[in-house]
Amino acid sequence: MPMVADPFPVASILLAAGREESLRPLLVQLVVIILAARAGAVVARWLRQPSVVGEIVAGLLLGPSAFGAWFPELFAAVFRGGAGGDAGGVMEASLTSFSQVGLILLLFLIGIEFDFSHVRRQGRLSAAISLAGIAAPFALGYGLAVAMTPRLDALGATAAIDARSFALFMGTAMSITAIPILGRILVEMGMQHTPLGATVVASAACDDAVGWTLLAAVSALAAGNFEIGRIAGIVGATLGFAALCLFVVRPLLLPRLERSVHGGDAGHGGPRLSLGMLSLLLAMLFVAAWTTSLIGIFAIFGAFLLGASLSGVPKVREAVTGQFADFVTVFFLPIFFTYTGLRTTIGSLSTPEAWGWAAAVMAVAVLGKWGGCGLAARLGGMPAGEASCVGVFMNTRALMELIVINVGMDLGVIPPAVACMLVLMAIGTTLMATPLAAWMLRGTQYEPTLVGRGFLRGR
Amino acid sequence: MPMVADPFPVASILLAAGREESLRPLLVQLVVIILAARAGAVVARWLRQPSVVGEIVAGLLLGPSAFGAWFPELFAAVFRGGAGGDAGGVMEASLTSFSQVGLILLLFLIGIEFDFSHVRRQGRLSAAISLAGIAAPFALGYGLAVAMTPRLDALGATAAIDARSFALFMGTAMSITAIPILGRILVEMGMQHTPLGATVVASAACDDAVGWTLLAAVSALAAGNFEIGRIAGIVGATLGFAALCLFVVRPLLLPRLERSVHGGDAGHGGPRLSLGMLSLLLAMLFVAAWTTSLIGIFAIFGAFLLGASLSGVPKVREAVTGQFADFVTVFFLPIFFTYTGLRTTIGSLSTPEAWGWAAAVMAVAVLGKWGGCGLAARLGGMPAGEASCVGVFMNTRALMELIVINVGMDLGVIPPAVACMLVLMAIGTTLMATPLAAWMLRGTQYEPTLVGRGFLRGR
Repeated sequence: MPMVADPFPVASILLAAGREESLRPLLVQLVVIILAARAGAVVARWLRQPSVVGEIVAGLLLGPSAFGAWFPELFAAVFRGGAGGDAGGVMEASLTSFSQVGLILLLFLIGIEFDFSHVRRQGRLSAAISLAGIAAPFALGYGLAVAMTPRLDALGATAAIDARSFALFMGTAMSITAIPILGRILVEMGMQHTPLGATVVASAACDDAVGWTLLAAVSALAAGNFEIGRIAGIVGATLGFAALCLFVVRPLLLPRLERSVHGGDAGHGGPRLSLGMLSLLLAMLFVAAWTTSLIGIFAIFGAFLLGASLSGVPKVREAVTGQFADFVTVFFLPIFFTYTGLRTTIGSLSTPEAWGWAAAVMAVAVLGKWGGCGLAARLGGMPAGEASCVGVFMNTRALMELIVINVGMDLGVIPPAVACMLVLMAIGTTLMATPLAAWMLRGTQYEPTLVGRGFLRGR
Repeated sequence: MPMVADPFPVASILLAAGREESLRPLLVQLVVIILAARAGAVVARWLRQPSVVGEIVAGLLLGPSAFGAWFPELFAAVFRGGAGGDAGGVMEASLTSFSQVGLILLLFLIGIEFDFSHVRRQGRLSAAISLAGIAAPFALGYGLAVAMTPRLDALGATAAIDARSFALFMGTAMSITAIPILGRILVEMGMQHTPLGATVVASAACDDAVGWTLLAAVSALAAGNFEIGRIAGIVGATLGFAALCLFVVRPLLLPRLERSVHGGDAGHGGPRLSLGMLSLLLAMLFVAAWTTSLIGIFAIFGAFLLGASLSGVPKVREAVTGQFADFVTVFFLPIFFTYTGLRTTIGSLSTPEAWGWAAAVMAVAVLGKWGGCGLAARLGGMPAGEASCVGVFMNTRALMELIVINVGMDLGVIPPAVACMLVLMAIGTTLMATPLAAWMLRGTQYEPTLVGRGFLRGR
């Protein structure tokens, strides 16, 4: 008879309560992350920077270099599940997933907001800017690395560094342009639909694709298994996927999306896709991300390609951004910034020589990107101010650079001190973009917009 | 000199690529989950059920009882990271987090869509319905359990079951009303802003709160440490938190939210909160969820209380739902359904006696909720059709019941066969809600809405 009262283990009072307990640390993380991003955004706007720059810095400050260094116990409690490492893995798995999914959604939105009409008109110009934006910084970075190699011991490199891999890596690191951050900056400055904005985004997109391909090639070379066949396969598969998006998915899907858009009903307002279409679109987005990840060029490219292939129809764009964009911006983006900040340890540069090299890294990065892209734009016929502005925008590296740095450190081709220099360069080039761009656009057609949004003082 | 070329470990070619590899299984899961939910929604609409019912069933079908039983290897590949259990924990951690955060967002939305004006007018009625909706099913469930106890051995109970705990648990399980699902059903039927809808939601909310408190009390009793002081503390803290939301947060926050709402600008359309306000609101939402979780009555109640305390201002409601609701519905909700489905194993009822008991469980559940609530509504002055309809809606148990079942199994107070009966009851009561409610509302003021939305045939 099942009537014997068994003493139940007190520890497992409630399965549900147990899940609740695992939920609480995540809630604390989310609150800290969202509030820090908000505070960063407020400070940034106060300093006439786009709020996204403040959010990036907030994410880095939440990492081990600031929050973790100043309040190690509180940091461990919030992000590592207390002193024990047990909960850390699961907690990090959640943040990782949120950040990855958020980045995919963001790149899709950047893609769908892409305005091809300007690019078509300015395709050759974008190609020239993009090419110059890779070649110049790569060459300069390679040269700097060659000069730096004999001094790596003095900079604290403990492991052996392969000189050729180091040089190729530095070249690649200089060539990166951060399209998601650049996209956000352009949106905040009100430039995303302008010819200048379109040229910059088109050039940055090319740069990004080439940059990641370079990164994969250099990584493969460094790891000792450079195969020309594999690289060719990646490029071919990517082009094939892009063609599929543009020539099959776009003609089949876009008219259906457009038909599904309905105006604001009682509960909502604004154009919206039907829930069924939105659901299909989301599934296709994750399929696209999965495909390019399998090809080997990162999931975010699939998201961007699908978005770009569905761009150009204002009704669809407004519906999708209306249904996605705010939540992605407010919820997912700060998580991505914090997640990357958590993985970044900004070491300290201890000697004057180290600071000298750091300055050289910054100078080479700026000279290569700004100079290369700006010159290409000017030669392509842009007015000097706008051409220079293109260069400044392309110089934005932000967190994409941090990913590259992590790769380099993991491969052992960049010592920690050099990684730290690159981190400073990544933040510096991002911080300088907005004030310099706004200053250069004084007196152009863009001035009223910039004054209206607080990036320039009215005259 | 750091010039010695070291053979780099091929295994760790790319840190980023490594993260990409961990991302791919998650992308596959998301695609499967979203498409299954979509398919379930289409089938449900075809059967004149609300799409949410189809999404629930799709989530259950993705679990070990259907997908896992029919395609064990594919199931393991998609949801358990292949044969090895290694990746399983991390993969499940991600799904768990997405599902928990999604449920919190959903309950906030249900709260903010809450229309208190009807409840104020019908407060006494809602209280009566709610009370009857707890007392009648609890008593009937308790009685059924007492009758069932001598037969538990025959039903395959292998462990000792405490008879009193079993009876209390069965009573509680019968008293559950699933407010999130009920809310979705009311929205889909177009009833959420009607007096009937408001009465049902108000009653269900009370029922839910009392039901969860009951669950906590019964669980504590079963675990052998029932303390009247702790229960009183939970109730007191909850009332205090609700008062804080209503008398401090609402007057301080709501005017600011209202001022921050701006009409559609170029990229969006429809009323929207500023990103800063949205960000603050999200942080407060997670703080509220964390608070009630700490109190001991589940995070979702904090989300609901905050939402409800910000309800009643159409401009704010439209802005928030416009910015959140579609993404929550399309992305987070199917994950929650699947996550719960993954944790639910619908065993098989092998004997005629077992099927007899299953029928008794279903009959008692329906009789208790429908009868109790319907009678209370009728005595409170509602027309017979509408009163009966209130009973049918309150009878919706859906996935909240599944959580209770998991708790009971974990505590060892419900044998697997009884758990299976309760699962069938949970799905059955949810499936019958819409067709019965629509049928009962024939000839009332609600008929045109129901015909318009396809839940009734036009005459």
